[in-house]
Amino acid sequence: MTSPSRLIYLPLGGAGEIGMNCYVYGFGPQGKERFILVDLGVSFPDMDGTPGVDLILPDVSWLADRADRVDAIFITHAHEDHVGALGQLYRHFPKVPVYARVFTANIATRKMEEAGQDPAMVQVAPVWPQTVTAGPFTVGFAPTAHSIPEASALVIDSPEGRVVHSGDFKIDRDPRVGEPFDPVMWDEIGKSGVRALICDSTNVFSRHEGRSESDLPAPITELVANARGMVVATTFASNIARVKTLAEAGRAAGRTVCLMGRAMKRMVTAGVETGVLTDFPPTVSPEEATQIPRENLMLIVTGSQGERRAASAALSRGKYLGHELKEGDTFLFSSKTIPGNEVSVGRIQNALSEIGVEIVDEQSGFYHVSGHANRPDLQRMHGLVKPQILVPNHGEHRHLREHCRVGAEGGLTPILAPNGSMVELSGNAPSVVEHIEVSRTYLDGSRLIGALDGVVRDRMKLALNGLVVVAIIIDEDDEPLEDCWVELRGLPEMAGNESVADMIEDQLSEVLPRLDNKTVMDDGKLEEAVRRVARQVCVSEIGRKPEVTVIISRLMSA
Amino acid sequence: MTSPSRLIYLPLGGAGEIGMNCYVYGFGPQGKERFILVDLGVSFPDMDGTPGVDLILPDVSWLADRADRVDAIFITHAHEDHVGALGQLYRHFPKVPVYARVFTANIATRKMEEAGQDPAMVQVAPVWPQTVTAGPFTVGFAPTAHSIPEASALVIDSPEGRVVHSGDFKIDRDPRVGEPFDPVMWDEIGKSGVRALICDSTNVFSRHEGRSESDLPAPITELVANARGMVVATTFASNIARVKTLAEAGRAAGRTVCLMGRAMKRMVTAGVETGVLTDFPPTVSPEEATQIPRENLMLIVTGSQGERRAASAALSRGKYLGHELKEGDTFLFSSKTIPGNEVSVGRIQNALSEIGVEIVDEQSGFYHVSGHANRPDLQRMHGLVKPQILVPNHGEHRHLREHCRVGAEGGLTPILAPNGSMVELSGNAPSVVEHIEVSRTYLDGSRLIGALDGVVRDRMKLALNGLVVVAIIIDEDDEPLEDCWVELRGLPEMAGNESVADMIEDQLSEVLPRLDNKTVMDDGKLEEAVRRVARQVCVSEIGRKPEVTVIISRLMSA
Repeated sequence: MTSPSRLIYLPLGGAGEIGMNCYVYGFGPQGKERFILVDLGVSFPDMDGTPGVDLILPDVSWLADRADRVDAIFITHAHEDHVGALGQLYRHFPKVPVYARVFTANIATRKMEEAGQDPAMVQVAPVWPQTVTAGPFTVGFAPTAHSIPEASALVIDSPEGRVVHSGDFKIDRDPRVGEPFDPVMWDEIGKSGVRALICDSTNVFSRHEGRSESDLPAPITELVANARGMVVATTFASNIARVKTLAEAGRAAGRTVCLMGRAMKRMVTAGVETGVLTDFPPTVSPEEATQIPRENLMLIVTGSQGERRAASAALSRGKYLGHELKEGDTFLFSSKTIPGNEVSVGRIQNALSEIGVEIVDEQSGFYHVSGHANRPDLQRMHGLVKPQILVPNHGEHRHLREHCRVGAEGGLTPILAPNGSMVELSGNAPSVVEHIEVSRTYLDGSRLIGALDGVVRDRMKLALNGLVVVAIIIDEDDEPLEDCWVELRGLPEMAGNESVADMIEDQLSEVLPRLDNKTVMDDGKLEEAVRRVARQVCVSEIGRKPEVTVIISRLMSA
Repeated sequence: MTSPSRLIYLPLGGAGEIGMNCYVYGFGPQGKERFILVDLGVSFPDMDGTPGVDLILPDVSWLADRADRVDAIFITHAHEDHVGALGQLYRHFPKVPVYARVFTANIATRKMEEAGQDPAMVQVAPVWPQTVTAGPFTVGFAPTAHSIPEASALVIDSPEGRVVHSGDFKIDRDPRVGEPFDPVMWDEIGKSGVRALICDSTNVFSRHEGRSESDLPAPITELVANARGMVVATTFASNIARVKTLAEAGRAAGRTVCLMGRAMKRMVTAGVETGVLTDFPPTVSPEEATQIPRENLMLIVTGSQGERRAASAALSRGKYLGHELKEGDTFLFSSKTIPGNEVSVGRIQNALSEIGVEIVDEQSGFYHVSGHANRPDLQRMHGLVKPQILVPNHGEHRHLREHCRVGAEGGLTPILAPNGSMVELSGNAPSVVEHIEVSRTYLDGSRLIGALDGVVRDRMKLALNGLVVVAIIIDEDDEPLEDCWVELRGLPEMAGNESVADMIEDQLSEVLPRLDNKTVMDDGKLEEAVRRVARQVCVSEIGRKPEVTVIISRLMSA
């Protein structure tokens, strides 16, 4: 007997963190559901927890094991934390169509190409009320507003009713590029009855109504008009509306505009190619810009989060692409510093301060607005969509919990579903029906490795403890040579006037000949004996307990 | 002919960063000045730039080279970034007296003891208008207010006039523990004519007048009174006034108070021992507290900055000292998250959210006040002290610059003097007369190492790049053995189904026998050849360019 069909929701990323969005919807009898996947985003590594990693990707192994039942992938918008993993993870879902709106599809196509996947699998989806059919689902892209063009919620209709997946959104009557948030459309979507709203939680702790992108042109234009030397402005490259506002402010002040940084040029190009960006002011290349007097120049650059290799950081360090900041220049951060990036951004601001550059940032309150719905805006969305069930997503655990509370206060039935919680949305009340073990995947050089594989943990141990390498040789008669070779990495070479490596070698030369045969013949035991000696010396001489790698070379008789 | 005497100021730490305060004042003919040292603080390491380091200390080598001319060390208050390096760095200044007020002296004495220095060198200084004489200086401890008891500015009189060194301070009419800020005293100090004010810049970007510690008891008491389950509150242990407010709020709600975390107990003990803390409510030990029903209990714990080993983090992870948080408990962060600690604090808050604990933090605006003077308060201090010269300190470069601007607007003569800038304060106008190279010192295990020694840079390379260790043996005939031994650390072991180590060994087995004799005989060349092979394999197989350590064992003929 087949079990009855059910409608399920399973976050694999993005519910319990801000970033790395990846959500599964399923419909059908248990074990035979058909699936769609919404978003395949990345998260960014840091020295603190993921040194040396290139990108953090969701762990899609659960869905990959059921790839034959995946009918489509939908990408809500072109931010890296929604589309960045598409290329790398598409290998698990060969031939599955990828749907996105035209601007998003442009970026998604590039991700596929870069990863050697078939870009033709990306298809441009029409806009709601038109829909795409994928297995038991029909899915419509309903425009919202956000900090990138064409951000869309998904209206997902299934035999068990309608689900609205908000994607990242804000309520903005005039986002300047792309469609405004349309309360009439949303009211209509809500009127037909919505079983569940899966809803962005990023700004649930912000108590005031959000502001509009269209609040910015006036103050930014005034700021640029009053600047004396060169003006440099940074923002997220994908926030094309902001880039346009900045460029227009430059033009209004009679300045020539120059875009700097690969992402900046790529995003503006994508905007123009796809027709979402019109009337963008003319720009010159960084090279051409060197010919223009600094007081007539405006650079719009990447690196608002303090990324070391981006244009902002490069300019703060000195000459970059022929341009050098000077006292009296103005540097505008038209951006929010994402938690965790404060130190990197501060580093740039201090370097700019040393040069004597005027720094203007969001603290003044005039030059940046958020792309996410604040608490009152979330409440308004709840009121428009009128879902029975609220499932907060795109947030750390504390955001999801707070959003649940806000929903409950508004009379909705909330359910807290962090990554790996499979929620049944059909039936009388939502419930978590299964917990899936979800980890993370690291793109590490050219390889994908699991977060739990231990590779990165080993790197962190090396960084925290330093390393002693010992090479010992066991001769043809199974006797250890008295000499051994020691190298230190990431440890002080000297303890006072004595070499730490020499002290370890001396100590081993004494210990090795005294080891019993059983220890010498057993790699594991021998290694342990050597490690103990190396650690003892380090603890007593430099007060540290290092990692120890022992290489045993056993000579064979000829 | 002796050059004329001059009055100089030289920051060795704290001017260009928040933390690690260390300032030198000198008076006398050039090259024969007598010196006093103000504060010897630490800064805290992080994974991002200083993995494995225990503490960051100022580089005092310039002053250590002139130790015979140092007459005294003054400690303004007992925060780690002002006193934390005293024990470790005192070795450079043997027999120099250390002056501090009684509470600070209690903590300073402990630092000396822990580092094996003579605690009797710490002397309790009297309070202004009494002074201490140290070489050509007389120095008075003038009470200010801050987030620790007995914070003091120093009134430093020299033959070239008076300097006021503000230390960390705020303007607080009622700090609850220790003296209030006394505008009458400060007006009098200013009236006698002040050549220079060296002034805290931490909060120069905060535009509103600071609030008083005495604003907190009412809302905190109400919060605790309304809580249902267990209440846990965290703050800086050294903020004894806050700890007292929290404890009193617990008592007022009929709760038994328990202090948790070594620093918490140590600071309260120091407060009681020195008489600055009176009427502290009775407390029980964590063990005794396990016998008390959770709704009658209030824990006051360390770890407000998310420190992994402190009580807050431990409680967020599960059972700690017999106590375990549950749904419905309340956790109050009566603290500010210092920039750079957002992720660590967020980790704890998310863990608490997973348990279902109510989290209350400073975002609400009611449960924390800063210990530093905001911009209007700085302006008020300028107005009271009326210095000719303003030298901002205790700030990142951007804070120092902004503070200079604020001072100039108020009619003062500011001078921007980051670490290493020797400023002459005597003469007609202040000027930087010399730049001293100052680095940082790391306490690393039991050793002090220089920040530029490369040890920590090597650790970061290991963490970012991973490591390949290769051991090769050159036999008695100076021929490399065909076999070699490869180990990976912090790198994926496998590339598909093949072992990366095996691939490197195979490749080396081919390359080694073909090396010319000149390469084999030369350790450097041989190492380079081996490194090249290991890197090539890694780049092509796993897309990474690792660190490579090569150990060459040369066998001697018997």
